[in-house]
Amino acid sequence: WGSAGYITLGYRGTFAFGRDGLVDVKFRKLTRLLVCGRVSLLREAFGETLNESRDPDRGPDDRYTGRFFLKHTFLEQAFDMLAEAGFHMASGMASGTNGADVKPGMEIEESRWQHYTEFVFYREPGDHCP
Amino acid sequence: WGSAGYITLGYRGTFAFGRDGLVDVKFRKLTRLLVCGRVSLLREAFGETLNESRDPDRGPDDRYTGRFFLKHTFLEQAFDMLAEAGFHMASGMASGTNGADVKPGMEIEESRWQHYTEFVFYREPGDHCP
Amino acid sequence: WGSAGYITLGYRGTFAFGRDGLVDVKFRKLTRLLVCGRVSLLREAFGETLNESRDPDRGPDDRYTGRFFLKHTFLEQAFDMLAEAGFHMASGMASGTNGADVKPGMEIEESRWQHYTEFVFYREPGDHCP
Amino acid sequence: WGSAGYITLGYRGTFAFGRDGLVDVKFRKLTRLLVCGRVSLLREAFGETLNESRDPDRGPDDRYTGRFFLKHTFLEQAFDMLAEAGFHMASGMASGTNGADVKPGMEIEESRWQHYTEFVFYREPGDHCP
Repeated sequence: WGSAGYITLGYRGTFAFGRDGLVDVKFRKLTRLLVCGRVSLLREAFGETLNESRDPDRGPDDRYTGRFFLKHTFLEQAFDMLAEAGFHMASGMASGTNGADVKPGMEIEESRWQHYTEFVFYREPGDHCP
Repeated sequence: WGSAGYITLGYRGTFAFGRDGLVDVKFRKLTRLLVCGRVSLLREAFGETLNESRDPDRGPDDRYTGRFFLKHTFLEQAFDMLAEAGFHMASGMASGTNGADVKPGMEIEESRWQHYTEFVFYREPGDHCP
Repeated sequence: WGSAGYITLGYRGTFAFGRDGLVDVKFRKLTRLLVCGRVSLLREAFGETLNESRDPDRGPDDRYTGRFFLKHTFLEQAFDMLAEAGFHMASGMASGTNGADVKPGMEIEESRWQHYTEFVFYREPGDHCP
Repeated sequence: WGSAGYITLGYRGTFAFGRDGLVDVKFRKLTRLLVCGRVSLLREAFGETLNESRDPDRGPDDRYTGRFFLKHTFLEQAFDMLAEAGFHMASGMASGTNGADVKPGMEIEESRWQHYTEFVFYREPGDHCP
């Protein structure tokens, strides 16, 4: 283990406006933390917090996946686990959604603030043994 | 103290157009500064400026939270406190809102310029004792 | 002087489409350069180019402000002044506006291209005396 | 080989909502990985994974192209190949789409979350021989 490589961590999110938008502080609300990259690196970085159940591919761990996600939605905890595994943040990007029909049942304000944010992490070649 | 880790600082904001949009210089208007990450790091970085009152979780400070915010809206003061605690900015991202119905009572120009901006700060492992 | 700290420099802008959109090259058009941060740092970096007239607060210069702007709109000149004062760029972020009603009198293409771009600059602790 | 230079890697993507939006986890869905830059660098970095078939220009390999793409859509595998060739990520950017009419046959939620993400990679001058 300890090999170099990239991991991408992304989430779709918005802000929690509550029923009728009455809550006074609107906190960040993350749908799910999606993680992509080489399976061996993802397992090394995320360990037990990794959910592989939606990836139909059961191949060897040097394959790449775009269908893993984490069991929790604490973004900074995921960042910390990546740092502990020797990854640093290379870039972060975000984009919003457009105003096409709002999904029924979704609060309009929550729909307006929807965004996708993605972070790319990289681990340099070197000795990363714990 | 002095441990490594990530803190995310974000704000929803717009520009102040004033009543009927008549003000001549439109300044940045921040709703609130939201901070997320490990509770011990947030307390260390933000001290008395931290508002924990909306987080129902009263667990130990090695837990992660997404429900803290600052008592003020001076973004650069928050940056400076993070720098004093040994954190540097790893990335910044922003996204706008879409054009779904404008909230009643909000000036249309202010609604068009709404955006969410998020900054990720990181502190390396090492000696961070003051 | 020479202390560490963050300065944010931002602008709302669009592209100049001219009357009836007939101009052949559409150049960047900046509304105003807004600068935020600790007053002492802003005065040190921007000197005579700084406009403090819209900030009602006349307190000491260790306070933070979000209501200063520059007397000119040459973005890269502002960058150069920050560099001369020892600041480097930590991050840049941008967001667009949404498609809510276009302001009367504004060219539709100019409205579609409106964006807010923000840059964060940081000066490390150290000897910054000229 | 081993010369310095920039390569841009981008993708248009969205999230897979499935028929009627019933799938429980919405994964990232990439249309295609587009790569641009000097042809010699692109061939060096991407080797057999490079598809040159849509570029009508058959000139020498010191020309620049914007019409190459990869044969696969594993973003992190492309990142790793760039790293192996000595390139590091300089920046990442993303933008969403606007709310003009949804393409017939496309799920509305998939249309709302469409985005374009672009990464810029750079290789410094130096000895990059394998």
